[in-house]
Amino acid sequence: MDLIKILENKTITDVPYFKASGIHCGLKKVKKDLCVIYSEKKAVAAATFTKNKVKAAPILLNMKFIENENTQAIVVNSGNANACTGEDGYSDALSMAETTSQALGLSPEEVIVASTGVIGVPMPMDTITSGIGMACEALSYEGGEDAAKAIMTTDTTEKIITVEFNLGSKAAKISAMAKGSGMIHPNMGTMLSFLATDANISKAMLNKALKESVEDSYNMVSVDGDTSTNDMVVILANGACENTLIDTEDENYNIFKKALHFVNVEIAKMIAGDGEGATKLIETNVYNARSLKDAKICAKAVITSSLVKAAFFGADANWGRIICALGYSGAELDVNEINIFFSNSVGKIQICQKGGNIDFDETAAKKILEQEKITVTIDLNDGNYNATAWGCDLTYDYVKINGSYRS
Amino acid sequence: MDLIKILENKTITDVPYFKASGIHCGLKKVKKDLCVIYSEKKAVAAATFTKNKVKAAPILLNMKFIENENTQAIVVNSGNANACTGEDGYSDALSMAETTSQALGLSPEEVIVASTGVIGVPMPMDTITSGIGMACEALSYEGGEDAAKAIMTTDTTEKIITVEFNLGSKAAKISAMAKGSGMIHPNMGTMLSFLATDANISKAMLNKALKESVEDSYNMVSVDGDTSTNDMVVILANGACENTLIDTEDENYNIFKKALHFVNVEIAKMIAGDGEGATKLIETNVYNARSLKDAKICAKAVITSSLVKAAFFGADANWGRIICALGYSGAELDVNEINIFFSNSVGKIQICQKGGNIDFDETAAKKILEQEKITVTIDLNDGNYNATAWGCDLTYDYVKINGSYRS
Repeated sequence: MDLIKILENKTITDVPYFKASGIHCGLKKVKKDLCVIYSEKKAVAAATFTKNKVKAAPILLNMKFIENENTQAIVVNSGNANACTGEDGYSDALSMAETTSQALGLSPEEVIVASTGVIGVPMPMDTITSGIGMACEALSYEGGEDAAKAIMTTDTTEKIITVEFNLGSKAAKISAMAKGSGMIHPNMGTMLSFLATDANISKAMLNKALKESVEDSYNMVSVDGDTSTNDMVVILANGACENTLIDTEDENYNIFKKALHFVNVEIAKMIAGDGEGATKLIETNVYNARSLKDAKICAKAVITSSLVKAAFFGADANWGRIICALGYSGAELDVNEINIFFSNSVGKIQICQKGGNIDFDETAAKKILEQEKITVTIDLNDGNYNATAWGCDLTYDYVKINGSYRS
Repeated sequence: MDLIKILENKTITDVPYFKASGIHCGLKKVKKDLCVIYSEKKAVAAATFTKNKVKAAPILLNMKFIENENTQAIVVNSGNANACTGEDGYSDALSMAETTSQALGLSPEEVIVASTGVIGVPMPMDTITSGIGMACEALSYEGGEDAAKAIMTTDTTEKIITVEFNLGSKAAKISAMAKGSGMIHPNMGTMLSFLATDANISKAMLNKALKESVEDSYNMVSVDGDTSTNDMVVILANGACENTLIDTEDENYNIFKKALHFVNVEIAKMIAGDGEGATKLIETNVYNARSLKDAKICAKAVITSSLVKAAFFGADANWGRIICALGYSGAELDVNEINIFFSNSVGKIQICQKGGNIDFDETAAKKILEQEKITVTIDLNDGNYNATAWGCDLTYDYVKINGSYRS
């Protein structure tokens, strides 16, 4: 991990030959609502998409376009998901790709399209078409922050990171920008996360690295158990760093993959910690499960349980709810072997031993649980497989945000 | 259904030869916390239990005792779940059966034991043992209401019903009393529901009728997606109505099963409508699914989605969240065929047609959604199978109840 350096400046335009822009076109009242990310050099792309059977129009379009060898631009709007919009919605997504490609001198299939916002409302295409024109004109090497702002919905902060690492004698970068917040329980791809790198890597290897990383990063996050219709993760690699092409699982591939996974995990944590209404980031580490699948099921069951999430909101060391969630998760386990701990910068405390009660200092536990980051460690003592998942607490504000009229 | 008469007096002691009592022994501060239900005549019993791998001690005990041919008493405490309490917990559950059986002149395996409350806390057996003594002394033919009160935890109302129906020339009764509220997402058995009947029915047929009914009643309810460690449904049948013994699938069996299922569905609805913090009962009817399994998965996905539940709290006709939940449910379906309606006593309105937007009167929709009971009708137009599930809205009070310290 010492080989991966986190840069202070952390926008997607930190990566050489990537321009970006974020503008207000009118989908939202005031805030920025449309962005374009553009690689001046030819680039290969890899992506993962939602497994929800109800797929938004841009997802259906991208599933075709991602097959193209070259991908140089991503256009994203917030404020309208273009989901459940039928054939018109598909034409609208295609039109977004066409308008962007014309402005940038590309072909439509070299553009990836993403939308986020309300489901089932027709896209106001006049607004969007003129917005894409403005955004393409505004593209610059300083536009990364504007772009990150333009994809936010109920997010309270931008989710951005840039890292630097060495590929042989060359310094390469990976930068990511994402939106999260609600309808977050990814399955395959996830929410919207866009990555750029100047690493020189083949499309096949880029695809392999992304798919493997997504399983253990975005796909281990849950805010509310709802898998969106619009989830996607896309990475563009333009090779500007001029390392020897990565086209096999060599040392540089492993370094690249490690850096990519580091970025994806950091973004996943940002998304979990900024879940709708959340006040706390909950990391659940499951150790010594019978299989990797059991470890993952257990970790996700705990961070998905409404009762566990509400207990974290109330700083209540209610381990009974955690063990209950493990029990109904469907994972194979021996309840009489389970140990559970809470920890963070304030301290570490065991709250359950061999599936049962243990005397612990309730005051110390409460102090740990009042912090903004809490790690739940669950030792199943039943095998050799581990997994980590990230979630957040369930708060009044989650209900407030989602119980108010569509916005 | 016209053959099933709902009685105004609706406690479990309406059923001949059933006595009950509910007392305060000290597990809770003030409220009643222990009850006994007792059939003076010999009775057969059937039960279903939680599928959670973490099973409370009384569940483990009952799984043995339910095999006994005769079952005459149920002892229930609230305030402590006796779950995750190890071997001591099992001894405590056994001791509850022994104490009850001694007071009533039964053998321990003729007693069913149930507990509900906080997980992982040792049972205060002195308090419980003396409480069982008091409760057995207090048994009476008027004790049904006290008993129903003693099993409540965060429930705001008692969940009780008695029906009368004819088996040949004899009038038979079934009465039920249940607790619900939180950690409600039954799988197999459910929360606590105790039923008594004076029908004369064999243990095998009673078991068959109960198991089939539970699948389409309690198992189709969700308050918060959390399956408890203590769920159970138990029915005692003492034959006092003297109908010809039901020991095959004859006409009387079908009448009995119909009455039993009616009672179970009514209790299931009471539990959903009184979910923790709930202000609304949501009934979801799914029609024309490809298989029964698909129909059930769809109905449960909708009433389990936090986003859908929050939208109902806000009276927001956000059909996009409903179709999103159908999409990630795992059910086989064709999104382009889905029609969705809201209805209740105020009116009926279509809000989604063929998986997409339809112009509808938002004011009329809001009026429907502001009522206490809302029916969501989902026509998948994709087969011939139907299912119904019951849930409630997600409110500030759910977070308040579960985000405060263990009580």
